[in-house]
Amino acid sequence: MVIELINTGAELLLGRILNTHQQWICRQLSDIGYSVSRQVTVDDSASSIEASVAESLGRADLVITTGGLGPTCDDRTRERVAALLGRRLVHREEVMDQIRGYFARFGRPMPDRTKVEALVPEGALILPNAHGTAPGLAISANPRPGQPGRSAWLVLLPGPPRELRPMFIDSVIPLLHREFPLAEPHFSRTWRTSGIGESFLEERLEKPLQPYLEKGLDLGFCARVGEVEVRLAASGADGLAKISEAATVIEAEVGDSIFGEGDELLEMALVQRMDALGKTVAVAESCTGGHIANRLTNVPGASAVLLAGYVTYSNAAKVRMLGVREESLREHGAVSEVVAREMAEGARRDSGADFALAITGIAGPSGATATKPVGTVFMALAGPKGTTVKHYLNALDRETFKFLSAQQAMMMLWRELRPM
Amino acid sequence: MVIELINTGAELLLGRILNTHQQWICRQLSDIGYSVSRQVTVDDSASSIEASVAESLGRADLVITTGGLGPTCDDRTRERVAALLGRRLVHREEVMDQIRGYFARFGRPMPDRTKVEALVPEGALILPNAHGTAPGLAISANPRPGQPGRSAWLVLLPGPPRELRPMFIDSVIPLLHREFPLAEPHFSRTWRTSGIGESFLEERLEKPLQPYLEKGLDLGFCARVGEVEVRLAASGADGLAKISEAATVIEAEVGDSIFGEGDELLEMALVQRMDALGKTVAVAESCTGGHIANRLTNVPGASAVLLAGYVTYSNAAKVRMLGVREESLREHGAVSEVVAREMAEGARRDSGADFALAITGIAGPSGATATKPVGTVFMALAGPKGTTVKHYLNALDRETFKFLSAQQAMMMLWRELRPM
Repeated sequence: MVIELINTGAELLLGRILNTHQQWICRQLSDIGYSVSRQVTVDDSASSIEASVAESLGRADLVITTGGLGPTCDDRTRERVAALLGRRLVHREEVMDQIRGYFARFGRPMPDRTKVEALVPEGALILPNAHGTAPGLAISANPRPGQPGRSAWLVLLPGPPRELRPMFIDSVIPLLHREFPLAEPHFSRTWRTSGIGESFLEERLEKPLQPYLEKGLDLGFCARVGEVEVRLAASGADGLAKISEAATVIEAEVGDSIFGEGDELLEMALVQRMDALGKTVAVAESCTGGHIANRLTNVPGASAVLLAGYVTYSNAAKVRMLGVREESLREHGAVSEVVAREMAEGARRDSGADFALAITGIAGPSGATATKPVGTVFMALAGPKGTTVKHYLNALDRETFKFLSAQQAMMMLWRELRPM
Repeated sequence: MVIELINTGAELLLGRILNTHQQWICRQLSDIGYSVSRQVTVDDSASSIEASVAESLGRADLVITTGGLGPTCDDRTRERVAALLGRRLVHREEVMDQIRGYFARFGRPMPDRTKVEALVPEGALILPNAHGTAPGLAISANPRPGQPGRSAWLVLLPGPPRELRPMFIDSVIPLLHREFPLAEPHFSRTWRTSGIGESFLEERLEKPLQPYLEKGLDLGFCARVGEVEVRLAASGADGLAKISEAATVIEAEVGDSIFGEGDELLEMALVQRMDALGKTVAVAESCTGGHIANRLTNVPGASAVLLAGYVTYSNAAKVRMLGVREESLREHGAVSEVVAREMAEGARRDSGADFALAITGIAGPSGATATKPVGTVFMALAGPKGTTVKHYLNALDRETFKFLSAQQAMMMLWRELRPM
């Protein structure tokens, strides 16, 4: 089954707004075993919309469009699609009722031009809009223009994400299951790893997974800064079993680098694991400047786990807030194994947390010395079993340096908490 | 001039990652007077890449691809484009040198398969990669496949944003100016505002700018969380003069809400202004959990400005680190005007900074009380002239709450520092 996605809107091609529909819709579909073959963004002119829909209908069984259903003059999708399919636009009173109800609910007058949203190509299904006025539309293009004998569905969705998303889940997914039931069940599973490069991961996994790949298991990698995703997918009645067997291989080969599955971020894994173990943490950050604390506190429930964060950019703050010794700073410099250790131990002592992470380094672009280039970073984990320090060279732009260094420090704690 | 953008990668169509290239590249181009007619995402199979590049070359003068230049088996762009254009792939020793240098800089071994990145279609220009191993490539497809007599440029860029972005600015924009000079000059200027809604901004500016709009000046707004962008654009020899005159109107009407121009973030504006004034700041964060400190320290030079950050999620940390009084917490609760004030004053006292910002609130999803719903937030600014406290209700998801609350607090400091 071929699915194509068309995002319309001049503002997308001018770079004024970020296209979040692509990821969201693609992810929803791939999670349930469907996949999008092609996504295209065109402007909202009549000719671009008509041409791109015609082109996609020539290839796809399902074409989804976003945008262009509103009441203004640059909302042309409804009208262009009706013209393309040779359907009349008819006024649907039940849509008008919903629109009137929406304005009534907010006690606002209904602008006259909103009426255009009740015009619907003949024979279209209405996808109710719980968070706005323009309904979505689903049209069975049977016969397809130019291809008699093959039928396709065309689904038109409104542009605003808070209207589109519930509509997709409530109306489009059921339509998909009804009109395009999967021939066989589909399964997938994704692991998130850190501390191991994509090429090395592939080298470690390719050979032991070979027998499964030959039996139709799909293996994919996706590298981001500080992490690599490993994904298995399989179709068929035995798909789940195939994935489970291969999972054992993955766990055995690279388990010590895995911190989570699916959408789980390292900070989520950490907060949940610490919460489950009843452990607490404090963070002392010099070069990462609050980045770790910020990520941990993005996770609901962080307050049970994070006792305190110390952002100690200056030497004075390191001494005053964390008890770092003046002579350590003088003899070894702020970016040193000794100071990283004292920062972690000081944060643990002051906060009373079970663990403390500390980072000190040179984020750049300035601050390098003869022996310590930009990207030099020391990180320490203090805990009940003592303190360990690691040293990396993350010669990257400033924000990437912060993210990666934080990821490495958080992995120190994650490995400590991981059951053996 | 027709420009098309092709984003390749199965992970984009699976919804594993967000396509940020589209917005970023489209924005870069529209800022200098070029526009993208069509953007398409295809998977990284050989046939999809070859078909989409051939299709785009049939329509466009410039085709830009992203992704598929890495060393793994699903990186096929280089090879497919060479095949499509009938060019041999040749080993370029200067590229190999750069790749070796990259690994040497990190003291890491070079995986053998990285060598494939030094294979380049014959006649291609190398776009150096300052932040990774695979270079970008620019190829003059002259004659175009299937269209003798018309020439086009094909630009292949690596997928990771931190590699693509500097490469685009350093190599692609100069190529564009050289190969596709504009018929008339194009100018644009963008202001960033915070603390004023899009409709109000539009109401305040539309009438006074009317005379300029009638003379061909283009006015646009773009709203994001916590800020609204105002953009002016004009073409022609007098474009810059038109914009300068209109700028005076904008400054006069809404100057007190403007914190920067172009890509300038509020944290950049703050760090630069404080540095210029020789002023320092400390931040005490409860509900934002290090978000402000993290944003400030993303800015090079923050170390001259930010003396200390206190992440005081727990009541104990507020008392111990900031000297908040036990009875204030007991009588008013941690989320209160009194505690926000004591946090800011404590941070200012402990750090010795000129100013201190403090935030305390309920990020949610839990933590609400009968009188304090999720989204309640108090923020205080302590400075030489005393302490002011503001109260907002930011009933949003957790991360948006943190961003917006931080933005509001930082605007308090920005307005304080703004020259009258």
